[in-house]
Amino acid sequence: MSTVREWNELASQLGVDSIRCSTAAGSGHPTSSLSAAHLLAVLWSDHLRYDVADPKNKANDRFVLSKGHASPLMFSVLKAVGAIGDEQLMSFRRFGSPVQGHPVPLPDMPWVDVATGSLGQGLPIALGMALAMKMDGIAARAWCLLGDSEVAEGSVWEAMANASYHGANNLIAILDVNRLGQRGPTMLQWDLDAYTARALAFGWHAIEVDGHDPEAIDGAFVEAERADRPAIVIAKTEKGHGVSFLANREGWHGKALSEEEAERAIAELGGPREISITPPKPETGVAPPANGAAVVLPEYREPIATRKAFGEALAALAARPEVVALDGEVSNSTHTEDFQKVAPERFVEGYIAEQNMLGMAVGMQALGKVAFPVTFAAFLARAYDFIRMAAISRADLRISGSHAGVSIGEDGPSQMALEDIAMMRAVHASTVLYPCDGNATAALVQTMANLPGISYLRTTREKTPVLYDPGDPFPVGGSKTLRSSGEDRVTLVGAGITVHEALAAAETLAGDGVSARVIDCYSIKPIDEATLRAALTQTGLLLTIEDHWIEGGLGDAVLAALAEQGTPFGRVVKVGVTEMPGSGTPQELRDWAGISARRIAERVRKLLA
Amino acid sequence: MSTVREWNELASQLGVDSIRCSTAAGSGHPTSSLSAAHLLAVLWSDHLRYDVADPKNKANDRFVLSKGHASPLMFSVLKAVGAIGDEQLMSFRRFGSPVQGHPVPLPDMPWVDVATGSLGQGLPIALGMALAMKMDGIAARAWCLLGDSEVAEGSVWEAMANASYHGANNLIAILDVNRLGQRGPTMLQWDLDAYTARALAFGWHAIEVDGHDPEAIDGAFVEAERADRPAIVIAKTEKGHGVSFLANREGWHGKALSEEEAERAIAELGGPREISITPPKPETGVAPPANGAAVVLPEYREPIATRKAFGEALAALAARPEVVALDGEVSNSTHTEDFQKVAPERFVEGYIAEQNMLGMAVGMQALGKVAFPVTFAAFLARAYDFIRMAAISRADLRISGSHAGVSIGEDGPSQMALEDIAMMRAVHASTVLYPCDGNATAALVQTMANLPGISYLRTTREKTPVLYDPGDPFPVGGSKTLRSSGEDRVTLVGAGITVHEALAAAETLAGDGVSARVIDCYSIKPIDEATLRAALTQTGLLLTIEDHWIEGGLGDAVLAALAEQGTPFGRVVKVGVTEMPGSGTPQELRDWAGISARRIAERVRKLLA
Repeated sequence: MSTVREWNELASQLGVDSIRCSTAAGSGHPTSSLSAAHLLAVLWSDHLRYDVADPKNKANDRFVLSKGHASPLMFSVLKAVGAIGDEQLMSFRRFGSPVQGHPVPLPDMPWVDVATGSLGQGLPIALGMALAMKMDGIAARAWCLLGDSEVAEGSVWEAMANASYHGANNLIAILDVNRLGQRGPTMLQWDLDAYTARALAFGWHAIEVDGHDPEAIDGAFVEAERADRPAIVIAKTEKGHGVSFLANREGWHGKALSEEEAERAIAELGGPREISITPPKPETGVAPPANGAAVVLPEYREPIATRKAFGEALAALAARPEVVALDGEVSNSTHTEDFQKVAPERFVEGYIAEQNMLGMAVGMQALGKVAFPVTFAAFLARAYDFIRMAAISRADLRISGSHAGVSIGEDGPSQMALEDIAMMRAVHASTVLYPCDGNATAALVQTMANLPGISYLRTTREKTPVLYDPGDPFPVGGSKTLRSSGEDRVTLVGAGITVHEALAAAETLAGDGVSARVIDCYSIKPIDEATLRAALTQTGLLLTIEDHWIEGGLGDAVLAALAEQGTPFGRVVKVGVTEMPGSGTPQELRDWAGISARRIAERVRKLLA
Repeated sequence: MSTVREWNELASQLGVDSIRCSTAAGSGHPTSSLSAAHLLAVLWSDHLRYDVADPKNKANDRFVLSKGHASPLMFSVLKAVGAIGDEQLMSFRRFGSPVQGHPVPLPDMPWVDVATGSLGQGLPIALGMALAMKMDGIAARAWCLLGDSEVAEGSVWEAMANASYHGANNLIAILDVNRLGQRGPTMLQWDLDAYTARALAFGWHAIEVDGHDPEAIDGAFVEAERADRPAIVIAKTEKGHGVSFLANREGWHGKALSEEEAERAIAELGGPREISITPPKPETGVAPPANGAAVVLPEYREPIATRKAFGEALAALAARPEVVALDGEVSNSTHTEDFQKVAPERFVEGYIAEQNMLGMAVGMQALGKVAFPVTFAAFLARAYDFIRMAAISRADLRISGSHAGVSIGEDGPSQMALEDIAMMRAVHASTVLYPCDGNATAALVQTMANLPGISYLRTTREKTPVLYDPGDPFPVGGSKTLRSSGEDRVTLVGAGITVHEALAAAETLAGDGVSARVIDCYSIKPIDEATLRAALTQTGLLLTIEDHWIEGGLGDAVLAALAEQGTPFGRVVKVGVTEMPGSGTPQELRDWAGISARRIAERVRKLLA
């Protein structure tokens, strides 16, 4: 146990170092760091059970800096625990440095588990970590430092509700109520009682504390650790605390001090120090991971909806003990309920809170889980910022979205995903998959479980015929040519539901004496450029057909691939959804959108006329 | 005032009609309709002050069905008030009918103001309506019916916090606590006290009520109407109420009854009725809109950041009294603070809650406001589902996002928008604009104010040189050719920040004897196909250069445009961000990404070698 003097000295050092590195960088958030210096001094000295030399040890507690802009403080802590040196600290925000403007996990920054900086994301992530620890029977805790501005984000309340519901008593939030947001006072300013009332109403244990009194902070942490439910330490703090011209002053958000100002501030804080601390060691060892059983994929010979095949394949993957599924309260539609039936202890019902679901998945994968967050593809748009940030976190996530396109039919446009491919293509290093039958789905789900980065599988609501044999290979970046001859005068490129329409169109066209090649482009990113290029060269006309807005989807992916090598190419015509759909049967709507067999054949005839 | 008997009879009729239309459709949500039948019977008979013959009358109260899947109930109400006939009701979910699976505002469905069906969106929208009414001095109210499952969505709590903060005592939420979600019980089931505690903690007036007792409901609405703050009526209800084999039973979510089941259910409800009701008339007339002053746009002759020019142009537009600005607590970065300075009463501080900000904007535009919701472009990803739904609402929204691309520099990837163009292109009927200087920005901001649908303006953090004269025209769908000659061997297409890099690259290349055309593609959707096509035809090589992921942005938009007419074209090379950036100076990062003048020139030399 540290003494009050030691905590205060460390807090001063963290403040000084936060100022030093941000002033050297010429930007950053020293004042948002100063408000939380005492909180982290006490946490890292005496509460966070953490092996700095082995940051990925599963027995470790985890710390998530949800208020990612307080990165100077985070890196100052990492210096105090000996993770990084002063020189590295002073490379803050420089090109090539792992000491970035906001924390990012990198090979040379293993003490950061997840990227933060988009506010309101830390608590959902920490909740996922806490639940993963519980799944693994590890007596570790997830700690999360939040700023007061960010609790305006609904995602925080999604996590608050889910944390108490799921009994995450190993989750401790620390709320740094420094009263001042970016452009002025927060909604609640220093009304700590309002924060407490909200936390209590959401089923948490809440403790108010003076955030610059280390002894009180220590007591609050002890109380939080002993709580029978998730606990939040609500700390009254001052932005810029400890420096007369910064403390509780407006106009200092996100501003580095000049060298002269820094000198004055550092003097007020008692000058630089060289304190080193060692956090408490993690308490428990961790059992080696259980051995998985062999995965036996389902095999299909009759029509089945790819969403159902997805659920069954996911259930088969439950044989691997690291696989978890997360649901947005639609498990009977996406068929993650099939996974729940066989592995209920690794199924997380996230209710209708897609942001928190994605955040939890990011937290779980940081602890080694192979996480599949799943909902209607349309509602993944709700979580796009989390997906964007997950890519910065270098997270491995397996996302699936069901009910793609106008093909859902009667429910109408609010439930139709028509932008999900565009959205997922524009995620760094993502993989975008869209199978058309049950066997392709099963194969791709198994593949996803081993893919790095963010992969996305789009599924269809209605049953589709089986085109492939069980066990057929579906490599990422591949395609399947379903019809081909030397006489082909046109290539029809589909994915998912439109593969079947393209096949039927080719059949019709064959009746008219027009031979059409049909390609199933199940891997949209990466895409099978060689096959597409050869098809265009050989047939001279290529149509992409997609149940998606005409922008950003299969068609754009095909055009981009064909442009890649720079060969002047034949004619490519994109066919997709261009007008706002309403209700109708799937077939009526595909016909209306121009992506039905009949409309495709009609279009080809006109183009060849 | 209706009698209890009248309310009950009407509720039974609404239940019967909900069953009739969904059974006829073969799908839909009769049980979620039955739980709220009494609530809406009392509301529409005696509380909602609404002129059915003049639904867009600004004096009307507004009703938002946040639980959009209860559309059978909504349309049954519209039949009872004479807005639609029984035949139209029975066209529910049919192709071409305005009686869609979830409510959608259409020319022939003017009683629906906004699309719902993605849960958790109704309350932010209703809050926007309530604030618009207050701005206009209209004593109307916004009413919003929520389901209990959807309060898991954080966006609901964003609206709860903002509503009390903004004093929206003309906002009344009705929470239909029917205990059952799509796949089973909700998190809180019938724990009404937990809902009440949460509502109170968020600053609302809360009233618990038996949701099938019309007299109690009436009393609760009276109390809510008199409250000095936003009020929520928390109603304990039964899903499938009134039908023995449906009431409070699991497994009936989103299922239409068979004809035989429907017959039994309708009999239990006392058979069909033909009750007509007339809601109370709106109380007040509405003052004619104030006349705006002439808009005098700022003029630039010195370098200025386009985000700053945006703020100043928006401030100039404040001369039009219908213009409002909404902020995500970053007004000093996006420069909406310039608008706030001149029109504080039409500036809404939404704090860090992007979903609610977009929802409020949708609600405000439904009442005639010209709404500009603005934040960092990266954080618009937070609100993508709201933007998607806004398009289904046929909303006119002017969205702006600042801090685009790696060009923000030191803050690192969490703050860099690199997917926003992809995201906004894939919004139905959207307009995507990306100006490169102050005068272009000012012109485009003024244009946006008059554009239908969803328009998006992307701005840059750092100062950029002035390329255009004040008053230069910037038509949507146009472009500016900044360098051109008969000897051009390459075309460089940029937008925003990359226009300046392209110009500098062209200068360098000219020194090497390579003449380059430079096009400022400030309108990315729609795009200037003719100019691009001519440039490619004349120069044979075209590079798109963008500070955005290589997927879904300017490059894909250019390829799609060039493919449109089907002419085999020359070589198009997309240059954009392909690796995950870190911190650095803007120039270092552009150079690293290959989009700096130096790297562009290098690339061109190689391609021409």
